[in-house]
Amino acid sequence: MKSQIVTFLIKCPDQKGLVAKFTSFFYEEGFNILSCQQYVNGIADRYYMRIRLDAEDVGISKKDLEDKFSNLAEVLECTWSVHYDSEKQNVAILVSHTSHCLYDLLERQREGAIDCNISLIISNHNKLKPIADMFGVPYYHLPITKETKAEQEAQVIQLLSEHNVDLIVMARYMQILSENFINQYPQRIINIHHSFLPAFQGADPYRRAYERGVKLIGATAHYTTVDLDEGPIIEQDVERITHESTPKTLKQIGADVERLVLAKAVKCHLQHQIIVSDNRAIVFPESGE
Amino acid sequence: MKSQIVTFLIKCPDQKGLVAKFTSFFYEEGFNILSCQQYVNGIADRYYMRIRLDAEDVGISKKDLEDKFSNLAEVLECTWSVHYDSEKQNVAILVSHTSHCLYDLLERQREGAIDCNISLIISNHNKLKPIADMFGVPYYHLPITKETKAEQEAQVIQLLSEHNVDLIVMARYMQILSENFINQYPQRIINIHHSFLPAFQGADPYRRAYERGVKLIGATAHYTTVDLDEGPIIEQDVERITHESTPKTLKQIGADVERLVLAKAVKCHLQHQIIVSDNRAIVFPESGE
Amino acid sequence: MKSQIVTFLIKCPDQKGLVAKFTSFFYEEGFNILSCQQYVNGIADRYYMRIRLDAEDVGISKKDLEDKFSNLAEVLECTWSVHYDSEKQNVAILVSHTSHCLYDLLERQREGAIDCNISLIISNHNKLKPIADMFGVPYYHLPITKETKAEQEAQVIQLLSEHNVDLIVMARYMQILSENFINQYPQRIINIHHSFLPAFQGADPYRRAYERGVKLIGATAHYTTVDLDEGPIIEQDVERITHESTPKTLKQIGADVERLVLAKAVKCHLQHQIIVSDNRAIVFPESGE
Amino acid sequence: MKSQIVTFLIKCPDQKGLVAKFTSFFYEEGFNILSCQQYVNGIADRYYMRIRLDAEDVGISKKDLEDKFSNLAEVLECTWSVHYDSEKQNVAILVSHTSHCLYDLLERQREGAIDCNISLIISNHNKLKPIADMFGVPYYHLPITKETKAEQEAQVIQLLSEHNVDLIVMARYMQILSENFINQYPQRIINIHHSFLPAFQGADPYRRAYERGVKLIGATAHYTTVDLDEGPIIEQDVERITHESTPKTLKQIGADVERLVLAKAVKCHLQHQIIVSDNRAIVFPESGE
Repeated sequence: MKSQIVTFLIKCPDQKGLVAKFTSFFYEEGFNILSCQQYVNGIADRYYMRIRLDAEDVGISKKDLEDKFSNLAEVLECTWSVHYDSEKQNVAILVSHTSHCLYDLLERQREGAIDCNISLIISNHNKLKPIADMFGVPYYHLPITKETKAEQEAQVIQLLSEHNVDLIVMARYMQILSENFINQYPQRIINIHHSFLPAFQGADPYRRAYERGVKLIGATAHYTTVDLDEGPIIEQDVERITHESTPKTLKQIGADVERLVLAKAVKCHLQHQIIVSDNRAIVFPESGE
Repeated sequence: MKSQIVTFLIKCPDQKGLVAKFTSFFYEEGFNILSCQQYVNGIADRYYMRIRLDAEDVGISKKDLEDKFSNLAEVLECTWSVHYDSEKQNVAILVSHTSHCLYDLLERQREGAIDCNISLIISNHNKLKPIADMFGVPYYHLPITKETKAEQEAQVIQLLSEHNVDLIVMARYMQILSENFINQYPQRIINIHHSFLPAFQGADPYRRAYERGVKLIGATAHYTTVDLDEGPIIEQDVERITHESTPKTLKQIGADVERLVLAKAVKCHLQHQIIVSDNRAIVFPESGE
Repeated sequence: MKSQIVTFLIKCPDQKGLVAKFTSFFYEEGFNILSCQQYVNGIADRYYMRIRLDAEDVGISKKDLEDKFSNLAEVLECTWSVHYDSEKQNVAILVSHTSHCLYDLLERQREGAIDCNISLIISNHNKLKPIADMFGVPYYHLPITKETKAEQEAQVIQLLSEHNVDLIVMARYMQILSENFINQYPQRIINIHHSFLPAFQGADPYRRAYERGVKLIGATAHYTTVDLDEGPIIEQDVERITHESTPKTLKQIGADVERLVLAKAVKCHLQHQIIVSDNRAIVFPESGE
Repeated sequence: MKSQIVTFLIKCPDQKGLVAKFTSFFYEEGFNILSCQQYVNGIADRYYMRIRLDAEDVGISKKDLEDKFSNLAEVLECTWSVHYDSEKQNVAILVSHTSHCLYDLLERQREGAIDCNISLIISNHNKLKPIADMFGVPYYHLPITKETKAEQEAQVIQLLSEHNVDLIVMARYMQILSENFINQYPQRIINIHHSFLPAFQGADPYRRAYERGVKLIGATAHYTTVDLDEGPIIEQDVERITHESTPKTLKQIGADVERLVLAKAVKCHLQHQIIVSDNRAIVFPESGE
């Protein structure tokens, strides 16, 4: 039963005996360990763990588990979080004009390929409303002008708050979020950039890729931070192109890379596979339990 | 110091508490756990672990460690092996006419990209001797006729035994080994097949790929078993082709896939990343410790 | 203007001067040659050409152009066809239970990524009707039992005929078409097979891929012929998997390969990039004019 | 017979009738056209052709062919070059410390995978001399200090001139060539850069890729121009990495990308598949004649 699965994400300074200590803790609490993934960064002397537990037959409440683990965490100087699969996450999608990523996410959610609620779609344009309607998801059209930018953002934040949104996906939302906004959702905003970052950071990457004559184009999904296009990279991919490719065909080829890269990143986030450390995203592979 | 690193490969029936038990064992013996990779096969209810230990400051001898671990292993019904990085493995390369995989392995070994001794090269032809000479590796030319096949194989086995060979690499050796031979080296013979198995099993895969009009060709490195081209797959890759590709150009394109796939498989084996279970090779990724 | 573009697909025995003769013919008729792609099969001594013409300012009617070209074609023993971009093709999609390819094609058509009419969807189940409704495409539920198979197929053919269907896409339609059906639509039925053919031909390829322990899985789009899974391959691709992948996750990973491979194949067909020769599909790359 | 094959590379302003005019010219001279590849850049209104001719039974001398074609070329405002496969090209390899690209090129040339003479190897270090000796290629050790840089370069140019070098391959030569040097060999110097340009232009790309946390690393082969790492890109490829990859393992993974990318670029150049236009390299695929 999925609802009994618990995931811990843990980071702490490296030291002898960590895996034994953590796994013994959960074993002694009666959990069956479904998978236990680790990463030791030998350069920074940091330790990272993602551990998946089957809570069947384990009586302990979430509150008690958190309290107990806190004691161990304090001793080992851990930063950590715990997630119950039974608590479905609420997702907001932000879009502008471009539809392919929106379609893709809506369809995956509807067909069960990603497990979440898509609570609402917010856009600075009205163009994609028919797609929201097709899938029966509330669509909020909040236009932006230079004068209303701050006000519009406040409305967005208000909506996110009302819907208890856990994750914000910028599915080709062509607006720069304010520092204030970003700081309210640390590592909870995912953006798709239509280039293989750090190449072609900034605007109009396909045009620039054409002009530079690259032989591969790509897309990058990353957490949004206050440094534009500089946030921790979650997923990237590329596709081969040729000299025949025009800026227009690059856009079409790139669209398929974008949608897959974004979908993978969103899935990794929703499945609690990611720990961010400095500006790097440690993305544990999906465990096959 | 590399010479102090110890790798355990373990498989056993799945049960609660395994990771805690194994890691506690090594922790209590004083080892620093560099990485601990697991795989639980929920379909077969089997558990697999690769654990890398730093033995610095650990006084225990290999013999004593084996004895102590045996006790735990018996209780948990484990099949296991232990490997010290300080014990360099001896490799024999078997070839016929084709040079690219041979070059590649010799060069990687010489430049330190794979860590082993290449003790000897054995061929049923004399053609590639100049390459062996360039790299200063003994080359044994043991021709085969229908009548002498058994006798030749006996000579090969004799040579492997004299050189204490740990791993045999069939780098495009176009002979079928006898059941007797294969059984003496279980999971210690790696073959490269020039197709994306199980497609085009058997002879002349590039010609058949051309005729079938596939759009990708590949190569497969696998452990040699008595079922021809059916052994556990270690590594595979493909390359895109077009209708312009002729059987001759397929061979050239395929050569680069073959050499990389074989080199990766050999490296995974030498680094003790592989556990074979039934006919599947569990290949743990290289840990970044 | 797109409506003025004409594509010729030509095949004939190879001989000196073909490209000069063909291009001179079109040049003299007043066409601007947008792109001219050739392939010479030196093994079979066959010549293939795809030529794209801009008919702006060219007065000649389709009928007259065909008549004139026929004369040249007869001399050079050509098989050929001519296609006007202005004549939009009608597509029928056949499905059973699985939705991802259906979504993908509907969305691409709706957003203009593939240029055709999707005239109808036919299924032996009622399950995917809501998707058809979302996109406003007629959905025909024609169930099959052993007894009614022939009758159901007659109904399908009747519907295809009524809708003047040019191309039939089997988007995971889990039924085998009769020889009679297939022969009515030569090189006009595209099927997606969820394996990297010719590996895992037949049923349940993901289960068999899991059991064989392959390291990559794939999908293949091909023209349907009377030899099951043996038709000319249009497009293939693969995705890397690991030992962690279960038959269930293989299905999810494979779904993304299937949808992209099928979409590319359909696009190549609709853009007249394909000439079939024996059992091989010559797929000219999209020209960047 | 390979020695009778002639390749023309042509670029000119686009206009109606070009392909007919060029192909008719060669047809009338008695050549058999083996392949004829074109590219029309609709944005810049430029036309590019690579045409391969079989000169068997054609009496015309190179001089006469050039003269005759010049007349046509003048009318159509072409820039062009002609290449006889019978004239083997001389290649110089420049290296510093790193061996993998050097090995790779030497081996491919020796085994016939690339068709050229490797006339000499020049290095600012003595380290790789043993490899040159293994392959029997002259090795010139020309050390550089700040004071002797200009002088050393003069010696390099002198050597290149003495050996009638057609192509210079910078196989990880960690020196910046002077503008004077580069201008003497326009589009005849190929460099391999160990990143997916334009990402991580400049020094130490693997370290920076690690710090940025990218999920793919790559390599780029390009013509050397006076703008460092900005020359026309011939070939690129990438390999997937994970958070486990350290700067050291990135180097190892990258090495295999570098060697393949460089080998492909060198092969394309030697086979006259490349036309440079502004800062873009038009690379025609290998034709399968």
